Amino acid sequence: MRILIVNGPNLNLLGKREPQIYGNQSFEAYLDELKSKISAELDYFQSNIEGELINCLQQSTHDGIVINAGGYTHTSVAIRDCIEAITPPVIEVHISNISAREEFRHCSLISSVSIGCIFGFGLKGYELALNYFVKK
Amino acid sequence: MRILIVNGPNLNLLGKREPQIYGNQSFEAYLDELKSKISAELDYFQSNIEGELINCLQQSTHDGIVINAGGYTHTSVAIRDCIEAITPPVIEVHISNISAREEFRHCSLISSVSIGCIFGFGLKGYELALNYFVKK
Amino acid sequence: MRILIVNGPNLNLLGKREPQIYGNQSFEAYLDELKSKISAELDYFQSNIEGELINCLQQSTHDGIVINAGGYTHTSVAIRDCIEAITPPVIEVHISNISAREEFRHCSLISSVSIGCIFGFGLKGYELALNYFVKK
Amino acid sequence: MRILIVNGPNLNLLGKREPQIYGNQSFEAYLDELKSKISAELDYFQSNIEGELINCLQQSTHDGIVINAGGYTHTSVAIRDCIEAITPPVIEVHISNISAREEFRHCSLISSVSIGCIFGFGLKGYELALNYFVKK
Amino acid sequence: MRILIVNGPNLNLLGKREPQIYGNQSFEAYLDELKSKISAELDYFQSNIEGELINCLQQSTHDGIVINAGGYTHTSVAIRDCIEAITPPVIEVHISNISAREEFRHCSLISSVSIGCIFGFGLKGYELALNYFVKK
Amino acid sequence: MRILIVNGPNLNLLGKREPQIYGNQSFEAYLDELKSKISAELDYFQSNIEGELINCLQQSTHDGIVINAGGYTHTSVAIRDCIEAITPPVIEVHISNISAREEFRHCSLISSVSIGCIFGFGLKGYELALNYFVKK
Amino acid sequence: MRILIVNGPNLNLLGKREPQIYGNQSFEAYLDELKSKISAELDYFQSNIEGELINCLQQSTHDGIVINAGGYTHTSVAIRDCIEAITPPVIEVHISNISAREEFRHCSLISSVSIGCIFGFGLKGYELALNYFVKK
Amino acid sequence: MRILIVNGPNLNLLGKREPQIYGNQSFEAYLDELKSKISAELDYFQSNIEGELINCLQQSTHDGIVINAGGYTHTSVAIRDCIEAITPPVIEVHISNISAREEFRHCSLISSVSIGCIFGFGLKGYELALNYFVKK
Amino acid sequence: MRILIVNGPNLNLLGKREPQIYGNQSFEAYLDELKSKISAELDYFQSNIEGELINCLQQSTHDGIVINAGGYTHTSVAIRDCIEAITPPVIEVHISNISAREEFRHCSLISSVSIGCIFGFGLKGYELALNYFVKK
Amino acid sequence: MRILIVNGPNLNLLGKREPQIYGNQSFEAYLDELKSKISAELDYFQSNIEGELINCLQQSTHDGIVINAGGYTHTSVAIRDCIEAITPPVIEVHISNISAREEFRHCSLISSVSIGCIFGFGLKGYELALNYFVKK
Amino acid sequence: MRILIVNGPNLNLLGKREPQIYGNQSFEAYLDELKSKISAELDYFQSNIEGELINCLQQSTHDGIVINAGGYTHTSVAIRDCIEAITPPVIEVHISNISAREEFRHCSLISSVSIGCIFGFGLKGYELALNYFVKK
Amino acid sequence: MRILIVNGPNLNLLGKREPQIYGNQSFEAYLDELKSKISAELDYFQSNIEGELINCLQQSTHDGIVINAGGYTHTSVAIRDCIEAITPPVIEVHISNISAREEFRHCSLISSVSIGCIFGFGLKGYELALNYFVKK
Repeated sequence: MRILIVNGPNLNLLGKREPQIYGNQSFEAYLDELKSKISAELDYFQSNIEGELINCLQQSTHDGIVINAGGYTHTSVAIRDCIEAITPPVIEVHISNISAREEFRHCSLISSVSIGCIFGFGLKGYELALNYFVKK
Repeated sequence: MRILIVNGPNLNLLGKREPQIYGNQSFEAYLDELKSKISAELDYFQSNIEGELINCLQQSTHDGIVINAGGYTHTSVAIRDCIEAITPPVIEVHISNISAREEFRHCSLISSVSIGCIFGFGLKGYELALNYFVKK
Repeated sequence: MRILIVNGPNLNLLGKREPQIYGNQSFEAYLDELKSKISAELDYFQSNIEGELINCLQQSTHDGIVINAGGYTHTSVAIRDCIEAITPPVIEVHISNISAREEFRHCSLISSVSIGCIFGFGLKGYELALNYFVKK
Repeated sequence: MRILIVNGPNLNLLGKREPQIYGNQSFEAYLDELKSKISAELDYFQSNIEGELINCLQQSTHDGIVINAGGYTHTSVAIRDCIEAITPPVIEVHISNISAREEFRHCSLISSVSIGCIFGFGLKGYELALNYFVKK
Repeated sequence: MRILIVNGPNLNLLGKREPQIYGNQSFEAYLDELKSKISAELDYFQSNIEGELINCLQQSTHDGIVINAGGYTHTSVAIRDCIEAITPPVIEVHISNISAREEFRHCSLISSVSIGCIFGFGLKGYELALNYFVKK
Repeated sequence: MRILIVNGPNLNLLGKREPQIYGNQSFEAYLDELKSKISAELDYFQSNIEGELINCLQQSTHDGIVINAGGYTHTSVAIRDCIEAITPPVIEVHISNISAREEFRHCSLISSVSIGCIFGFGLKGYELALNYFVKK
Repeated sequence: MRILIVNGPNLNLLGKREPQIYGNQSFEAYLDELKSKISAELDYFQSNIEGELINCLQQSTHDGIVINAGGYTHTSVAIRDCIEAITPPVIEVHISNISAREEFRHCSLISSVSIGCIFGFGLKGYELALNYFVKK
Repeated sequence: MRILIVNGPNLNLLGKREPQIYGNQSFEAYLDELKSKISAELDYFQSNIEGELINCLQQSTHDGIVINAGGYTHTSVAIRDCIEAITPPVIEVHISNISAREEFRHCSLISSVSIGCIFGFGLKGYELALNYFVKK
Repeated sequence: MRILIVNGPNLNLLGKREPQIYGNQSFEAYLDELKSKISAELDYFQSNIEGELINCLQQSTHDGIVINAGGYTHTSVAIRDCIEAITPPVIEVHISNISAREEFRHCSLISSVSIGCIFGFGLKGYELALNYFVKK
Repeated sequence: MRILIVNGPNLNLLGKREPQIYGNQSFEAYLDELKSKISAELDYFQSNIEGELINCLQQSTHDGIVINAGGYTHTSVAIRDCIEAITPPVIEVHISNISAREEFRHCSLISSVSIGCIFGFGLKGYELALNYFVKK
Repeated sequence: MRILIVNGPNLNLLGKREPQIYGNQSFEAYLDELKSKISAELDYFQSNIEGELINCLQQSTHDGIVINAGGYTHTSVAIRDCIEAITPPVIEVHISNISAREEFRHCSLISSVSIGCIFGFGLKGYELALNYFVKK
Repeated sequence: MRILIVNGPNLNLLGKREPQIYGNQSFEAYLDELKSKISAELDYFQSNIEGELINCLQQSTHDGIVINAGGYTHTSVAIRDCIEAITPPVIEVHISNISAREEFRHCSLISSVSIGCIFGFGLKGYELALNYFVKK
């Protein structure tokens, strides 16, 4: 089983930005942890560029995709259309609970084309999503 | 570790209602499965009455609560206030992906007072939530 | 043929409240009239508690249901979900013409899951609804 | 007792349009049925022209009017004003349940000036309305 | 003079919940204080169940009612209809200043059917309301 | 100087409808009064049909037009476009003060293409408008 | 007969501001013209201060008031309340056609408490309003 | 192949109205040009009356219809319902680019029941639409 | 203890305006009553001018302020900012129940910066507010 | 004559995605067809990256541009500004009828700066647009 | 070069109000600093009264005006109209970043008639504005 | 002191686009002017690609950043999140006064995370922003 994790804009700052909230672990370090826990092949892609995220999603031939589209979550019809068009099932993850933040973060354009959503569990959310794919 | 699962209105119809979509397993049968998989004591409460859900939540002394408030999700400030007031951490679960359904189901009053949200994974969503509590 | 009539909150006050508008006949007295006119077995349930209305609707094995959900008409996603889930066809009745009253009464969450709506005919509305079931 | 039935735009297509939904009976044929069932004199008028509907309503000296204003239901302040101005009581009928259709059909400008509304019972709705007038 | 005090959902948690804000006095203890200060007979009812609040209000034969409907304040058309229907005059009280809290708490369905509103004075608000009844 | 007065739907009912409010003078009778007071040739057209009002406006070669579009005031982009396209200047008149009536009457599509608006002066409003044309 | 003309903020600039549009006649000069034409005693008050306009309106014992509240038209509940409270009938005048200008000028808080509105006729609007009072 | 062109209100003014924008060619003259270019039988109907447009559309047995509903585009549910009910495919044309004009012209009720839309190409838009039918 | 009472626009008309509703007692007369009942020094200020209310509030060195800002309640960010900036605690009073009046009166800009709100108790509302300060 | 065709995000999936709807022809294959039909030099650019679309549009020196901005149609002020700034005239094309799809697709930011719009004709829409340029 | 600085309501409290945020320097003290830095004659006016601000602006014959309208920024059409009418160019300044504060402060009625806006730089904003005038 | 200037989409067209408005100076030429005036090291970056702007902002180690995000100002949550996450303080500049342009340009997502905003001063706005950093 092969799963792709896709992170959107500013998620490359994890571990450097507001460490008192997010901890000081980078996503790459966390990925190593995940690889040791999850019995699946994990690929990882991060970009700040909306269209590169789309390029990556279009080329995916994985058994499942876990995406955290960051700020594009709330504005990108293009990523939404891409997820709707491709074959692999997609799970949407957010580190924070977007419902408890600013009004403009409450609506996700991506949710309705994902099979499921996991919000607010910190980095643990990625693990829950991966477990869903692995156990299915 | 003791965890409470709370189901709101109409979730007692699971297994009887629209079986082609939801399968023909009742929540009670599924609960037995869960108990065998999860290394925690599980309590279960279901009611169609908003205030009884509040009564139950107020009396909980569990280490965590998993709630699917059904139709009250979108209308109950009272349940929201209750979750905010009580001590145990709460995870919100929905069987279906509420973002992909009618407009009036997109907003959950409960999300912003929960530690996290898991939507769209079918009955598996309860298991993901329980695993989060157990592994923490 | 068996038909269930379900009345929501405050409809137990009929005949006592604002008699100059609603007359001084209680619903129970009116029910006796209906029974003598309609060639069907009529069951009746009234509650001020949203969840008890749901309990009642879920247990119904009637050939049809006539519901006046009172104030829950405009706020109850839970009753709506229940009507959608159960087997008996449901007709929505309101004594007054809700379109001619306050803005917040114009929208009924129940209408779109009912087979039909009858508004504004006073207590006669129940009779029209029952006649529809009987003649079908 | 004399009652006028008024049908608005496109209702002359009944029996020809989408027969799998509406059946293949024209309104004229149905009217013959109604005449045999209802102990009142029935007049009938249909027009696709908003102002002709108003002309007809203004000239009515009937004991009651049953109107299905079709697409003008949602847009015609002029028909609304006419119903408010004339003497005969008016019942609004729709064949389909307008609450279960597109958003722009949920609001009827005519409802608040009618004595009552009957939606969603197919052609039977006209009969229910006529019965109300006859029995009153 | 007999006055009824009605408290809605979660107000049974007073004195236990967020004591740094609300103090650690339960409403029952406060009620004893009130009884010693106010020259009227005071009855008290609390429920988390919307319909039980309605049941209680309907049966009241008091000279006045003081209500804090908690979370139902913002969502209950049914309680609103009940207050409009019953004879005793009703004063609406809130412990906190609802205008200074979240957007969804700014609108009270109950205010427009109450004779007056008292918001933001803590538990003192009940005393102000009772004084109004007593002095009238 | 030749001036055209155009009246929209239901204004043919003046003098018959709600006489306690509008008096029992028909517009035709009032027109005779106007003709004796105003030193201009007055033509008059009334129709309940939106498109006939447009036909009439398009053919006008008058020095000025006074229009009361009745219920079409709030809904007719077509009449608005016509007034914008024709040469004679147009004054909009309403008998009642539309700002003091229902919300849906507050917006006039015609106002912004008229040279001026006169609302609320009863039938006197027509005379004020005619005087403006005559004195200019 | 005594009539008061009240002008709000910036109307003291008439004749100085944008003369290509409004001409170069000050309101005072125009007032002299009006006095020679209208067979009534005319008083005039202008202020840029909202509360002074209210002071003036409250003290009026005239047979009628013509008001152009300028920019306060769209924002002053206080002037609106004043007009509603005082005895003399009020006519609202605007020099320009407010419906053909920016969105925020379309709504007048004053219209609904005035007996009538005259918009868009330039300074002639005051004369039309005065004529209405004189002829009544 | 037979195609019907239907023009709504005020389009009979083409060539007379605002010639600096629309040119001074009437639609009839343009129609002659079209007939010489397009290898199909062209029928033409124009009316300012909404219901006559519906009458015409209902009777059409053409292979395709090109409609410019003018001002009714934005307000007519009745024309929309008619297009949905009839058999011939419909293309919606507007001479100007309605998205670049006033807000109330941005929404067309007709677009969603047409097979396609062509906006902004002047009279050429009709030719593009006809070519589509002819080449199909 | 020194308390300031501040009344906004049109409240100087009390006792003169709509006496059948408000009684024929002026605020000054009522103030004398208050002074005899309340064991505190009472200062009083009324103005129709928004900025003079601000001037007065800024200079206050009282132990508490009771304000009824009249029509400025719904429009004055400036008064709101002033209340937020000054030291004395402020209670907002309205004679009528603003929630039961026009839509535009439902929102108070002042409520969220006041310690509490008292609406709908007539002139008694001032007394309730004063009592709160005195007893604190 | 040189014309540029610009396709936005996910349009590189044409022929692979939902073939039952869009057919199994790629845009490149369709482009070859177009080249053989249209007597103009055709350049083609596709990108999933918003800014690369802008780069391409800025560098264009063509006689006309046909753009289908895909998902960026509804969200990109930046592409809109670019089209407004460049010299070549732009026609907006969409394969599907965006008015008949989800609400968030009804508004195009690009329409108002394009000379014209062609929606809903499938791949034929590009040909119609090219023909317009060629024949002009 | 002569420049006028105009400050609106509550800005006379600077240096006294919330010193931990705004510092304890009054605007008058800051003005002395400005005079020593800026090579222009500086006049200063502050008022809490909207109409006095208008009076002052109307009489200005300066080469430029710097205005901070305080709370009137968001509500005063009258000040907006005044700025549009007078000759001197106006720069709008706010000490705090109004976009980062409450929703009702996000919209400024004054911005669109100012030549430019400077928000969020504290008292430094006045200096930036003055420098712009001096260097031009 | 090192300051970074970041320009978003289409700002590379300055000096080429609409020269009658923006002049015919490119930003590069203007930058040379700035460098000679400002005593700080200036770096410059322009891109039409949203994600490249984010890349650049993330890597900045400057003492301050001046950003004009062009069309992304109104749509980019991703740039907003980036500005919030990075260390250097950011000033938002716009050449034109965005409040005086189209509705969709009135709201900037970036303003609330910037220390200050400078709008409408043309290219001078950059200089004002730089001066603020240099003088601080």
